[in-house]
Amino acid sequence: MKNYIETLNWRYATKKFDTSKKVSEEEIEKLLEAIQLSASSYGLQPYEIFVIKNAEIRNKLQSVAFDQPQITDSSHLLVFANLAEIDKSYVNDYLDNLAETRSTKRTELAGFEKMLDNTVLKFSPEEKNQWAANQTYIALGNLLSAAANFKIDACPMEGFNSYEFDKILGLKEKGLTTAVVATIGYRSEEDQLQHAVKVRKSKEELFNRL
Amino acid sequence: MKNYIETLNWRYATKKFDTSKKVSEEEIEKLLEAIQLSASSYGLQPYEIFVIKNAEIRNKLQSVAFDQPQITDSSHLLVFANLAEIDKSYVNDYLDNLAETRSTKRTELAGFEKMLDNTVLKFSPEEKNQWAANQTYIALGNLLSAAANFKIDACPMEGFNSYEFDKILGLKEKGLTTAVVATIGYRSEEDQLQHAVKVRKSKEELFNRL
Repeated sequence: MKNYIETLNWRYATKKFDTSKKVSEEEIEKLLEAIQLSASSYGLQPYEIFVIKNAEIRNKLQSVAFDQPQITDSSHLLVFANLAEIDKSYVNDYLDNLAETRSTKRTELAGFEKMLDNTVLKFSPEEKNQWAANQTYIALGNLLSAAANFKIDACPMEGFNSYEFDKILGLKEKGLTTAVVATIGYRSEEDQLQHAVKVRKSKEELFNRL
Repeated sequence: MKNYIETLNWRYATKKFDTSKKVSEEEIEKLLEAIQLSASSYGLQPYEIFVIKNAEIRNKLQSVAFDQPQITDSSHLLVFANLAEIDKSYVNDYLDNLAETRSTKRTELAGFEKMLDNTVLKFSPEEKNQWAANQTYIALGNLLSAAANFKIDACPMEGFNSYEFDKILGLKEKGLTTAVVATIGYRSEEDQLQHAVKVRKSKEELFNRL
């Protein structure tokens, strides 16, 4: 593996993919593992990810995403959908999983359960949605770093109609809503953006050292 | 560098830091570069990060963060503050930076400028804040992956009073608000959590393949 900072410099929001190259199933599994291992508030992972190869679905989604070519030209389309409103039943399932995975009794998790009751479960619907969306963006960040490390290109995207995405993917019925999207694949040699200088705030502008 | 997925498995939300170990300035700079290179919507980086070593400030912040020991035991405290409400002047500065960095005329950016006018600058104040917070969480995700790759421990934290954090750090005057916090350093050998099995949704639960 190359130097980590070099890989982050190598990545860019790929607008033009090489349609002849597909990400192998083995590489896809590594990217999904990186997403799976993402940190989240209390470990609750309040999201699901739709990994889409199906051309028909991608065509439909493209039509409500300003016809951006990446949606269909990329190897895979990943739709990050966050839980719209976390509830007690979701938290219960999580605590069951936690107890089983760590061979702990559910009763030993009473303190943690109370904390969840008094924080995330007390949020307003809007706060719950924002909190869940925030966690989803950590997972997106993790995907982007992982992809760069495996020399796989990606384009994170916010330009889409989330209401229509939810409808096409049947998310409402699952209590989910589209937060953000990423396309992955391999950059086309024709994409001039890969040669563009990165534009970033200087360290002096970005960081305050106290 | 170890296998990328292994490093993600190695990381965990470190609750107990070894107070005798500090992250070197050289390592800190690499972490900050990883944050600096994070993707953000339109490249706008609507955030600043406070990198805090100062003990007095950390004591104050700890008192409004449920007295969590990581705040003062860690090597460095990073406060991620997002732009509360992006405005035209911020966008102008960004476009100036973009034009200068890429040796482009500002007039050639007219289409892009119009797009920003019609999207982020049209958001409601609440939408602007959420949008900016989302971008900030990508940067947090990037920090966590980078830290793991450099075998530096981290603990992302949402348990704090953001109103009080903003007051202590004078963020309101700068148009910023605290989104999320991370402490970094090295795990204490006594922290039993490092031996705990990771609890994650199964791939079947987390991913929908279409």
